Amino acid sequence: MKTARPPAFRLSSRASRLRPSAIREILKATESPDVISFAGGLPAPELFPVEQVRQAADEVLSSEGAKALQYSVTEGFGPLRAWLGEHLEVSAGLKAAPERVLITSGSQQGLDLVSRVLLDPGDVVLVENPGYLGALRCFAANGAELVGVDADEQGIRPDLLARALARSPRPKFLYLVPNFQNPTGATLPAGRRAEVARLAADHGVPVVEDDPYGRLRYEGEALPALCSLPEAGDWIHLGTASKLLAPGLRVAWMAVSDPRLMERLVSAKQSMDLHTSTFAQRLVWELVRRPGALWAHVERLRAAYGRRRDAMLSALERRVPQCAWTRPEGGMFLWLELPDNADAGRLLAAAMRRKVAFVPGEPFWVGEPRRNTLRLNFSNCGEAAIEEGVGRLAAALRDPF
Amino acid sequence: MKTARPPAFRLSSRASRLRPSAIREILKATESPDVISFAGGLPAPELFPVEQVRQAADEVLSSEGAKALQYSVTEGFGPLRAWLGEHLEVSAGLKAAPERVLITSGSQQGLDLVSRVLLDPGDVVLVENPGYLGALRCFAANGAELVGVDADEQGIRPDLLARALARSPRPKFLYLVPNFQNPTGATLPAGRRAEVARLAADHGVPVVEDDPYGRLRYEGEALPALCSLPEAGDWIHLGTASKLLAPGLRVAWMAVSDPRLMERLVSAKQSMDLHTSTFAQRLVWELVRRPGALWAHVERLRAAYGRRRDAMLSALERRVPQCAWTRPEGGMFLWLELPDNADAGRLLAAAMRRKVAFVPGEPFWVGEPRRNTLRLNFSNCGEAAIEEGVGRLAAALRDPF
Repeated sequence: MKTARPPAFRLSSRASRLRPSAIREILKATESPDVISFAGGLPAPELFPVEQVRQAADEVLSSEGAKALQYSVTEGFGPLRAWLGEHLEVSAGLKAAPERVLITSGSQQGLDLVSRVLLDPGDVVLVENPGYLGALRCFAANGAELVGVDADEQGIRPDLLARALARSPRPKFLYLVPNFQNPTGATLPAGRRAEVARLAADHGVPVVEDDPYGRLRYEGEALPALCSLPEAGDWIHLGTASKLLAPGLRVAWMAVSDPRLMERLVSAKQSMDLHTSTFAQRLVWELVRRPGALWAHVERLRAAYGRRRDAMLSALERRVPQCAWTRPEGGMFLWLELPDNADAGRLLAAAMRRKVAFVPGEPFWVGEPRRNTLRLNFSNCGEAAIEEGVGRLAAALRDPF
Repeated sequence: MKTARPPAFRLSSRASRLRPSAIREILKATESPDVISFAGGLPAPELFPVEQVRQAADEVLSSEGAKALQYSVTEGFGPLRAWLGEHLEVSAGLKAAPERVLITSGSQQGLDLVSRVLLDPGDVVLVENPGYLGALRCFAANGAELVGVDADEQGIRPDLLARALARSPRPKFLYLVPNFQNPTGATLPAGRRAEVARLAADHGVPVVEDDPYGRLRYEGEALPALCSLPEAGDWIHLGTASKLLAPGLRVAWMAVSDPRLMERLVSAKQSMDLHTSTFAQRLVWELVRRPGALWAHVERLRAAYGRRRDAMLSALERRVPQCAWTRPEGGMFLWLELPDNADAGRLLAAAMRRKVAFVPGEPFWVGEPRRNTLRLNFSNCGEAAIEEGVGRLAAALRDPF
């Protein structure tokens, strides 16, 4: 009888927009230990503050006990929100009262929250092109129509943004990663930040500024957040503990310019997961409340990642001089351009035979991809592996592909 | 100039469906330490396994270190999924291969995931009436049209379900809490489970079975999950560590009948929060992998909550004989009916003056509320406080309200 029954699960139109991630498939293929992977976007686990987390867990449970394990408010743990209010001002020049800071279960949830509260199917979102894949996929899954604004080695181009704003039906927001962008590593200079902020404000378009890597700067001076500039209109600013401490905690935050939007975000988050793990929030608070310890840890990250970036830049110069690449001042990625007619997807097959992996640029592009581009991660390999891996990549480039 | 700019944030139609929770406002009012609150839905913090969590954190970080703090796969931690596959079979008779188990960031995320993957605005969802508020709000926020099927002290009425299925445009799913339901405390007997499963299957309507309290049984024999019955068609089964261990970890799970649905759920979750906290998942695994320790803890919960339930039933019998109430075999709540013309919302004002709180039944109803109903939680107060609180409630009932 059962076979005669009608099929039970009928998917939503949203579900039909969900596609398996191209990157995830690549990452699965690179799990073999003999593969040197520049493909992932992982922070270096050997630099995680494991012992500090262990002490923090001990401290939180010994002193706060049950409170750290109970349900808690959707907005997030008060002392952590208060600290973030100060931290955002000190580190990014952003004035955000704790009442306008919301703790999220990773920045991915922040992106999803923004989508829920602002996006209807068919709404236009402006994004840097190429752009951060996790955000592109999230906005698309929420029905957005993505309009890419081309970026160069200095980030999004204000002249093209002005053109897009003149042409698009009024977009719901502009999404940007101004510091050490994923995938390109580009940093938006101060002048462009002001231009972009002014253009968006003049068109009544809020800026969603995603800053996961801002503190991971290996050279040059930190720039104020785009949202903090006098030119800025309304904004949402996203930050995360994933790159500063550890991603497995899933603690991130967002600050917003408008308290009324905060109310909506809190209501939306309540129906999404009630609140972010009380215990994880208290752990993060325990880890950041002593700024000396936090910044000493970040200094270790900066030193190690900076050496890895240098190792990758140096190996690329010596081994693949026929290519061009960005020179990121921080973060975890650089962006490489193969000679014009080369296809990074086909190169990946050759590279995998030589046991080195990367992510072809294609999925990062909105609209027509430039197939000769690819992303390299330098945070998750030691310098010797980077040297060896770039050597393998150079050999793959000499293979027919 | 800034005042001349257009307003920037334009909300989505979804955001306009979000309403502040009535319960949240009540809960805020009951935070004062001199109020005895039967309003919340909190497990008892004094029974949390704080020391076990502390040891587990120590163990996980000492032995697994960085792995416990790194990004991880969307599906969840493999050993925990495998354990859940066994656990669901042993505890609820449910056969769910680990490949069909997804770890979620609390059951609330499970409900939201189900909504994302199955619901388009305007789709009909059948729910018990009265029903679990967090689910009703989540489905409504995702655009569902809720159709309530009245329940009695034995849970949802199959005769009314049959009528609703005959009348409704084919609903996307039926949502049920068969064990110790929130808000009524009712448990669906074996016969009704089979009838409900068969009715849903015959109409091609999947069952979403939410079972947060199933192990918290204080009398009688455990019943197999509705989804496990031979009559069942397609199903989604939700469980959580929140009531077994601690809600602040935000670790829950869902099992599904159809692996193709699993794929969609994983894609949807990936865009929602990438994955549930690696660390929290490994903590839960560390806490459940020694079943002896887990079940000893659950026995302590059952003994303590059972005494609290008994204290509340006894106090109600002695002090408010003019009312009727359910006699839950487990869980955390009972449901009280005031005399016919009484309004629980007005009673709450009188009760708050006497420093006792509850949740009026109104928000749990779909459609016309029965205003003489209210929910009492008995898990979060000791027996003496329950006796005193019911006394205050009785006094409030004698006040003019």
